[in-house]
Amino acid sequence: MLTVFGSTALDTIRTPSKIIKGALGGAATFAGISASYFSETGLIAVVGRDFPKKYYNILAKKLDLRGLKIEDGKTFRYDGSYDKTLSTRTTLKTELNVLGNFKPSVPEEYRKSEYVYLANNDPEQNAHLIKEFDNVKFSMCDTIEFWIAHKKSSVIKMMKTVDAVVINDEEAKLLTKEHNLIKCAKKIMNWGAKYVVIKKGEHGSLLFYDDVIFPSVAFSLEDIVDPTGAGDSFAGAMIGYLAKKRSTNLSTIKKAIIYGNVMGSFAVEKYGLDGLLNLKNSQIAKRIKQYEKMIRF
Amino acid sequence: MLTVFGSTALDTIRTPSKIIKGALGGAATFAGISASYFSETGLIAVVGRDFPKKYYNILAKKLDLRGLKIEDGKTFRYDGSYDKTLSTRTTLKTELNVLGNFKPSVPEEYRKSEYVYLANNDPEQNAHLIKEFDNVKFSMCDTIEFWIAHKKSSVIKMMKTVDAVVINDEEAKLLTKEHNLIKCAKKIMNWGAKYVVIKKGEHGSLLFYDDVIFPSVAFSLEDIVDPTGAGDSFAGAMIGYLAKKRSTNLSTIKKAIIYGNVMGSFAVEKYGLDGLLNLKNSQIAKRIKQYEKMIRF
Repeated sequence: MLTVFGSTALDTIRTPSKIIKGALGGAATFAGISASYFSETGLIAVVGRDFPKKYYNILAKKLDLRGLKIEDGKTFRYDGSYDKTLSTRTTLKTELNVLGNFKPSVPEEYRKSEYVYLANNDPEQNAHLIKEFDNVKFSMCDTIEFWIAHKKSSVIKMMKTVDAVVINDEEAKLLTKEHNLIKCAKKIMNWGAKYVVIKKGEHGSLLFYDDVIFPSVAFSLEDIVDPTGAGDSFAGAMIGYLAKKRSTNLSTIKKAIIYGNVMGSFAVEKYGLDGLLNLKNSQIAKRIKQYEKMIRF
Repeated sequence: MLTVFGSTALDTIRTPSKIIKGALGGAATFAGISASYFSETGLIAVVGRDFPKKYYNILAKKLDLRGLKIEDGKTFRYDGSYDKTLSTRTTLKTELNVLGNFKPSVPEEYRKSEYVYLANNDPEQNAHLIKEFDNVKFSMCDTIEFWIAHKKSSVIKMMKTVDAVVINDEEAKLLTKEHNLIKCAKKIMNWGAKYVVIKKGEHGSLLFYDDVIFPSVAFSLEDIVDPTGAGDSFAGAMIGYLAKKRSTNLSTIKKAIIYGNVMGSFAVEKYGLDGLLNLKNSQIAKRIKQYEKMIRF
């Protein structure tokens, strides 16, 4: 089993062509739903009493929700606006609400999870929570600018506690103060992570392991409507695929990254979570084939 | 035979770690030298009486120089400074000198060239010059911001006269006023180019042909010292490889792009042209193998 720990949110998404309010979002939501196509996935997260029943039902259809707490108060809300290129997002408002005082713990039923993904949470919470698992075979974390700016030493400590760090390129540079992504990855590996995956959005990703570098392109798309959650979907698919294969050898990890690229491409084709819901396994398999054909020479 | 038309320059290169003055440079120099590893290559360019004999000898060793004019006056000079990330270059000074009044023409001996590369020249000159060739099998052009800003309609007209447009991502966006690179390429193909190659620097490139998209990663390098001429080296290798194979079918073009990526990677490892000079064919072949291994999954 796979456990994903992170935020479940109500998002306001502003793109040049549309504004969506109160959309189901959050790093753990995207990662968990994406992972659910590959593995049984448990969610550790918190929402408020205002969390819509229909959203609960969407999550319940895909995920084990024994780790989802419903607490008095309002759900975490995020409001962000994309520029016309859809490549830069400005945060307009963040309301932590019930997330602010959340004391996460691993439900008894999840403790035996062999695969654990720690999304963009407080690095101290992440480092603490990972210890509550008994039987971890492969763990992965991501982080965001906010934690790098406010708790950098905790971010670095957290990275020692996991097998793989998945991080986007700008954040990797910010964290390591390096400009070259290979240098960034080497620094993070020196801190203790065995694998580093640097996500580059439309430019794909770079996997680092020992002296191996595996660059992969993104699945090319002409019509991107909403980049929200692409990186989380990438990470969720990656660890979900590993959980499905029950393997973490290098060739499986490379394949997992291709699944990450492909699930990220589904995520950005529709608003919010819509690109990831109601996918058929055959659609995923078809796009993997298209990907393999696309890059062949 | 392949003919390359473009600038030969004396460059001042300013990087955070070093300043090099009077280096042998220019788009046609990089493209021509890169191409020379694959095909007999003729150069159409102009230099002044100040052009150092040792640079002439470097060019003469690799290229057919019957198209190189030496005119009264000074050689074209370019002075540019890279920021600490080596990803942004600021132009400090451009002295056209003999390039300003150059009236290029195709020497008799080059007229039968089957492969022609028009580097970042005045688009009207390019469109005029290509007509002087008798037997073109595959032609390619690049352009730069300066021409897009000053002669946009001529740039578009020029693109109709060639088979392939090679252009970097920022310039493709500027030219087409599109944000998505697939949309950029479609617009350029609608203007008449059969193939479009969008260069993305460290992120590799995208080839477009009909409804085919072929994305390829760059060869990953930890130590980049000078990005000058990387794109020109890419283009030169690409068309040089096609000339060598005497083929322009899609699979050969894809392979040519991989050679472009690899020759671009040699170019950035040393200052100025140094990364491209004195390469052995075995080094190129080795890096192609490394590239193929790197991306395999």
